[in-house]
Amino acid sequence: LDQTSLNHQTEFDIIRTYFKDLTHQKGVEKGIGDDAALVKASSEHNNHLVVATDTLIEGVHFPNTAGALDIAQRAMCVNLSDLAAMGAVPRWFTLGLTLPINLAQPEWLGQFSAGLKIIADQYDCALIGGDTTRGPLSVNITMLGEVPLQEAMCRDGASIGDIVYVTGFLGDGAAALKNELEKPQPSDVFRSSERLFNRFYRPTPRIKEGLEIRSIATACIDISDGLVADLEHLCRSSNTSANVSIENLPVHPEVKKHYPEQYSDFALFGGDDYELCFTVPESKNLVMGELIESRSVNAVPIGKIIKSNGSGSRVLLNGRACNSKKTGYKHFE
Amino acid sequence: LDQTSLNHQTEFDIIRTYFKDLTHQKGVEKGIGDDAALVKASSEHNNHLVVATDTLIEGVHFPNTAGALDIAQRAMCVNLSDLAAMGAVPRWFTLGLTLPINLAQPEWLGQFSAGLKIIADQYDCALIGGDTTRGPLSVNITMLGEVPLQEAMCRDGASIGDIVYVTGFLGDGAAALKNELEKPQPSDVFRSSERLFNRFYRPTPRIKEGLEIRSIATACIDISDGLVADLEHLCRSSNTSANVSIENLPVHPEVKKHYPEQYSDFALFGGDDYELCFTVPESKNLVMGELIESRSVNAVPIGKIIKSNGSGSRVLLNGRACNSKKTGYKHFE
Repeated sequence: LDQTSLNHQTEFDIIRTYFKDLTHQKGVEKGIGDDAALVKASSEHNNHLVVATDTLIEGVHFPNTAGALDIAQRAMCVNLSDLAAMGAVPRWFTLGLTLPINLAQPEWLGQFSAGLKIIADQYDCALIGGDTTRGPLSVNITMLGEVPLQEAMCRDGASIGDIVYVTGFLGDGAAALKNELEKPQPSDVFRSSERLFNRFYRPTPRIKEGLEIRSIATACIDISDGLVADLEHLCRSSNTSANVSIENLPVHPEVKKHYPEQYSDFALFGGDDYELCFTVPESKNLVMGELIESRSVNAVPIGKIIKSNGSGSRVLLNGRACNSKKTGYKHFE
Repeated sequence: LDQTSLNHQTEFDIIRTYFKDLTHQKGVEKGIGDDAALVKASSEHNNHLVVATDTLIEGVHFPNTAGALDIAQRAMCVNLSDLAAMGAVPRWFTLGLTLPINLAQPEWLGQFSAGLKIIADQYDCALIGGDTTRGPLSVNITMLGEVPLQEAMCRDGASIGDIVYVTGFLGDGAAALKNELEKPQPSDVFRSSERLFNRFYRPTPRIKEGLEIRSIATACIDISDGLVADLEHLCRSSNTSANVSIENLPVHPEVKKHYPEQYSDFALFGGDDYELCFTVPESKNLVMGELIESRSVNAVPIGKIIKSNGSGSRVLLNGRACNSKKTGYKHFE
């Protein structure tokens, strides 16, 4: 590796050297190494292409202490989560990797590509285009998938009376962040909790759940900014409001125990959970119940879609307006 | 606009405010504003998807004096050029925009989105996903297009005896860079030459030419690193070498006049020309000649594909080995 300059030639070598194992998959006619990739969409001609893109920046979306393997896995999972929210099957992805000279080394690149590979293998998607550039560390992934059009879950399909569900646990992202960021030393809680650490760096993209619910759900969003903020996005797109029962929020016992005062706020306003929030009409609630019973989907009902009053889309908590100032996203700075 | 933090909420607003005009196009079921975009590939089921990705970093791929409109246009053109080299028709693109707080303002964003729109309209492609993040200025674009598989031009199809062609003029990129970068003050040549300035910030993606030649050419690459470097890539993929006649290189009179000593080096080793270099078999050279005669394609023959000797793929200049140390790419630092 040329340590003095990451020019086009060495970029090409980096991609070939470290990322070529990630390109061998069904439907890839030409992967890395040409001007562009050539891929074959699934032959079911009613399938549509689903495209999501997300950039992770050091110091904003992950702390500057993060390891290459963890960064790569988080970048993959966050993008896959967007596909899960559409009910899509992942197929291919491109990588835009900007890295400073001191990281353009075999160890870091090897770890980074290993991280990509673990998630790519797990979700059966192939790297088809890569671009490495010199600069401050950032990772852009564009993820491509497929979904039958009539089954794609969008944000705008919720109707009054629909039941609001969420998958998994809420508040883990905020709990992990609090530990990692707000203490001068990494706390015992965070370091000793492999679960929380993994929930931050490897939040399970709910691809399987997305496929299970896509013919039942009327709308869906993944929770990256926090339940209230994201459910509000869904409501705004659907021209509705929602009422959430705080006592129904699924919070992991570990988070309840360590943050008895804060866990509700974590679950409502914390970001980085990457669970699905979706709506199911009354008419399909029995089917939904069966999916939960049979453990095909790990989800709980947390509220209902209601009519918006004059002031637009709102998320009520136990029937009361909540302080929307709390919504938002916590950065690493 | 929130000037103190570019959090998820304001990112969403930036995309909606400045980039929503770029999403209305055929085949876009859901553009910006959901977790992912939903697009419908062309119904011709033998079409394949073509995907190219490229990141432009301030200070590396464009000078820090560059304006928002110019940066946006360059980012688009560079990515479209990759699609042109495959013989593809552009359809959709995603944008990963990282920008510092001082640029997250209406004027800069308005100019940037105007730049994207000019090129997107010209090449009939739609923005389907956007992500804005706070950080040092960089622009990642992933461009999606379509091509009938049997007509896709790759780098590995050249055969011994094929004639090597290039489109347009070579050396403009290097001449523009030299003026912009190596002088303490922007030189008269560069500033007075709108042509050179535009060739740098708006290199014409040879989409039309790609479509014209795709059933004739055996291999194709776009010239971003310099003719010799990129033709060498093509030769390596095709297991051949090439011999180029220096006197046949198409160099614009303006560049010849201002750089009488250097224009050959600019044309051979300079980057950023974004012309197509492609190979045509003898059997199709008459058809190629007719395309040139009829002005459907502006291209000239510059050499031939020859057998590699033991030392691997080489690009000879007038039959002689050239100093490959000269190949490469000039950065802004």
